[in-house]
Amino acid sequence: MHSIEQYREEFITHLEQKVGTREPKKLYDPIVYILGLGGKRLRPVLTLMTTEIFGTDYKKALHAALAIEVFHNFSLVHDDIMDDAPLRRGQRTVHEKWDINTGILSGDAMLILAYQLFENYPSDTFRELAELFSKTALEVCEGQQYDMDFETREDVTVPEYLHMIEYKTAVLVAAAMKMGGIIAGASLKDQNLIYEFGKNLGIAFQLQDDYLDAFGDPKTFGKQVGGDIIENKKTILYLSALQLGSAEEQKEILDLYSIQPQDVAEKIKTVKTVFISSGAAKHTKTEIGNYTEKAFEVLNVLNISDEKKAMLKQFGENLMKRKV
Amino acid sequence: MHSIEQYREEFITHLEQKVGTREPKKLYDPIVYILGLGGKRLRPVLTLMTTEIFGTDYKKALHAALAIEVFHNFSLVHDDIMDDAPLRRGQRTVHEKWDINTGILSGDAMLILAYQLFENYPSDTFRELAELFSKTALEVCEGQQYDMDFETREDVTVPEYLHMIEYKTAVLVAAAMKMGGIIAGASLKDQNLIYEFGKNLGIAFQLQDDYLDAFGDPKTFGKQVGGDIIENKKTILYLSALQLGSAEEQKEILDLYSIQPQDVAEKIKTVKTVFISSGAAKHTKTEIGNYTEKAFEVLNVLNISDEKKAMLKQFGENLMKRKV
Repeated sequence: MHSIEQYREEFITHLEQKVGTREPKKLYDPIVYILGLGGKRLRPVLTLMTTEIFGTDYKKALHAALAIEVFHNFSLVHDDIMDDAPLRRGQRTVHEKWDINTGILSGDAMLILAYQLFENYPSDTFRELAELFSKTALEVCEGQQYDMDFETREDVTVPEYLHMIEYKTAVLVAAAMKMGGIIAGASLKDQNLIYEFGKNLGIAFQLQDDYLDAFGDPKTFGKQVGGDIIENKKTILYLSALQLGSAEEQKEILDLYSIQPQDVAEKIKTVKTVFISSGAAKHTKTEIGNYTEKAFEVLNVLNISDEKKAMLKQFGENLMKRKV
Repeated sequence: MHSIEQYREEFITHLEQKVGTREPKKLYDPIVYILGLGGKRLRPVLTLMTTEIFGTDYKKALHAALAIEVFHNFSLVHDDIMDDAPLRRGQRTVHEKWDINTGILSGDAMLILAYQLFENYPSDTFRELAELFSKTALEVCEGQQYDMDFETREDVTVPEYLHMIEYKTAVLVAAAMKMGGIIAGASLKDQNLIYEFGKNLGIAFQLQDDYLDAFGDPKTFGKQVGGDIIENKKTILYLSALQLGSAEEQKEILDLYSIQPQDVAEKIKTVKTVFISSGAAKHTKTEIGNYTEKAFEVLNVLNISDEKKAMLKQFGENLMKRKV
């Protein structure tokens, strides 16, 4: 087995070889730009790792890994337009650097380019990959729609929120891993098990994102701590506080989330106090633990060596220990 | 063989059966809306007709025909955002009826849904259809990009314009027909010939659109006559006038296209006079005839009965005789 770092390096080399500009430049330049901005490359690394875990040369999975990364970046380009986000990975978003029309059209081209990458596989594999990809891509769109719907809804429940992040974030992690299984010719049972592993780890990952946004260490957390609180985002912390808090705590949260105060530091501080006193912070940690555990339980029935199981578990634990 | 009207009716019945709303409503309602707005259904009808021409039950092609129509409408939804268009087929565009974010995301979902429709075919057919679809969809994006680039360019040539409309419009007509050939198991040679037929007819169709926009009969032409002139659109008429006209005519056209006068009727009248005196109108008619002829020449080598060739020719002639 190779290391995460080796997969990542190999993937980046592949990406740089395959992604170049062509005519019309205004369509393809933004694609090169966004794919070159970096990021953890978590999803493609998972595709490569899963392929090797199921006993096949991970290099066979480079095309599928690139498809996953191109799709992920397509969704970032379009989401950034919808969220009116000026920055992505510390750099200007595509619609800021060019314009909204460019963001729309280059994004569309990326979605198509992702499908084309599966053409590098034999027909049966091509079909399995494309079908999984379509199902997943549609779920990601649905997740994004739910996320936008939640902004104007006051009655979002924790289960609804969990369903939203499953679709918006976790299924793509799951599909990235299942694609490794498909390319390696793993049994359907193992393909579905690794999908469940990825899905539950993906949910835990997103919940932890919510947690770190409020309680991360400003020294190591990449983004501004409290960003979700400033934006009044209905994260698991917010929804749990409303569910678990006293009448007074609920009122305090609702009040603070209905205003945009001058002193954001004070708002963040008060909200975090309520997140703790209401039990929302603890509940969130418990849920992160539950989903991580659920992912690890899959390993018990997966038909791979103990050594490889340990590797997957290590990967999950590192992800959950992260500070960024 | 069935009639165009029969194909259209069968297609609409299929569309109404397959396209319904689901959750989240805000994602799927706009899809039902745009697909229900009508239109000539030209592309899906061509898929069905071509399938039957190559000796296979046209009903086998209903899924592919729907994929083509869903993709065509996806491109309309995103193009209407980019063009800031308020109306489509006399009704409000998706981004006007909902908002831009809805238009982006529902459009994305439509592109994915189009791919999913090919899953109704066996793996080899699935692959051929999906590959042709990806290639075509990417060309349509490139065509749209060139079209937008041309708006701010003053040195667009007629060959560049022809390349743009080939990508933006004609290749989808071509692919719609080739898909019929794929589903019917036509020889690769016949598949490519019918693609050429569709492509050349598609170019002729778009050039005629340009011609009718200026010289159509206001009584029968569906849109406002002179709409392209009001919008200073660089159509084949405009580009030919600049290429063929005298220095004086060129200057007159450039002047009129650099202003947005109060009296549009006067502008339209003058521009049309120059389109005629410069030879641009005649040149456009010649080009329409050339591309139609090029399409018909394909019929000589296509391996189908004379009766079916006559039917394709009749279809092309009717398209070129249209007043709307």
